[in-house]
Amino acid sequence: MSSTGVFVVDRLIEKFKRLPGVGEKGARRFAFFVLQQPSGWVEDLARDLLEAKTAVRPCRICGGLAEEELCPICADPKRSNGIICVVETVEDSLVIERHGVFDGRYHVLGGRFSPLDGEEIPSDRLDALRRRLVQEGVSEVILALNPSVEGELTAMAVRDAIVDLPVRVTRLAFGIPVGGSIGFVDSATLKLAMEGRRGL
Amino acid sequence: MSSTGVFVVDRLIEKFKRLPGVGEKGARRFAFFVLQQPSGWVEDLARDLLEAKTAVRPCRICGGLAEEELCPICADPKRSNGIICVVETVEDSLVIERHGVFDGRYHVLGGRFSPLDGEEIPSDRLDALRRRLVQEGVSEVILALNPSVEGELTAMAVRDAIVDLPVRVTRLAFGIPVGGSIGFVDSATLKLAMEGRRGL
Ligand SMILES: [Zn+2]
Ligand SMILES: [Zn+2]
Repeated sequence: MSSTGVFVVDRLIEKFKRLPGVGEKGARRFAFFVLQQPSGWVEDLARDLLEAKTAVRPCRICGGLAEEELCPICADPKRSNGIICVVETVEDSLVIERHGVFDGRYHVLGGRFSPLDGEEIPSDRLDALRRRLVQEGVSEVILALNPSVEGELTAMAVRDAIVDLPVRVTRLAFGIPVGGSIGFVDSATLKLAMEGRRGL
Repeated sequence: MSSTGVFVVDRLIEKFKRLPGVGEKGARRFAFFVLQQPSGWVEDLARDLLEAKTAVRPCRICGGLAEEELCPICADPKRSNGIICVVETVEDSLVIERHGVFDGRYHVLGGRFSPLDGEEIPSDRLDALRRRLVQEGVSEVILALNPSVEGELTAMAVRDAIVDLPVRVTRLAFGIPVGGSIGFVDSATLKLAMEGRRGL
């Protein structure tokens, strides 16, 4: 029911409605905003969309966002090598990065363990983690997983996959409200959770 | 402060932040959503953006959205010819259209009269309205302007521009809450406002 009577505009509105959290009204506002911008701006946006989609690939080491073979963090020699922060998604790693509370490297699982939903952690991501622990001489793995049943199960699954390796496994511990999500905490809370991490 | 460390993604996030009502967090969600879509979907979106921007132009008669010389409403012989609904923006005409409470034609001013903000109604849109009133044999002009000081001033300015013509000038009257906006009322309220319109 988003008819403007003008086919290409309706098609654009339908596309915008697919964006997360965007309804009919928001999609229409976006479309009219676009129609009112200079042509150059719209051309830039279209080009950025295509370039982001084609130029970005998973980092060969951590699974994060990369334009080259390695992401900027894995390519940075100043990042601490002995400690790896395991996250479910790239978004979670970027949230932690933005708060500036961690100077090690990341490992993106790209999934979580949730038997009820039929979800599993991709096994190649767990294999890659094992290899990194050995090759990079890692002394600690911090599990930065959401405080939910699925996060708990995922933490257990990761721990079980690396339990035979001589590595300390910790988990973000306090500050994050139960039922909450890593994407929504402030810097202070996340800093506390990082400092208060406990052995698993 | 939207750095993902990956240049094309950051550029895309900055673009999304320009959309109305979208902040840092929303822009990031949109970008990651796009990265997770199939390439074909992203290509379609980019093409729709460019096509909407290039294919859409103002309707020669009403100033609404058109892909041809005339918009779908002005091109529709079944729309009542004797009554014109004057709106500030294309968005407002589409809102009224969506509620299905009006079967005449529209006239988009493309601006409002607000001396304090230095805004004026484009004079060619007022000239075009005068021409239409004569040529189309219009018997009534409904001013569908927002219930605000600027809407009031704009209504007066339009009335003054056509006051010498033998046309009834009415205004959407009740139902629309003061301080509110046409874009946010429900169908019932708008229907009441349409039925309760009064002479100006
Ligand atoms: Zn990496
Ligand atoms: Zn038209």
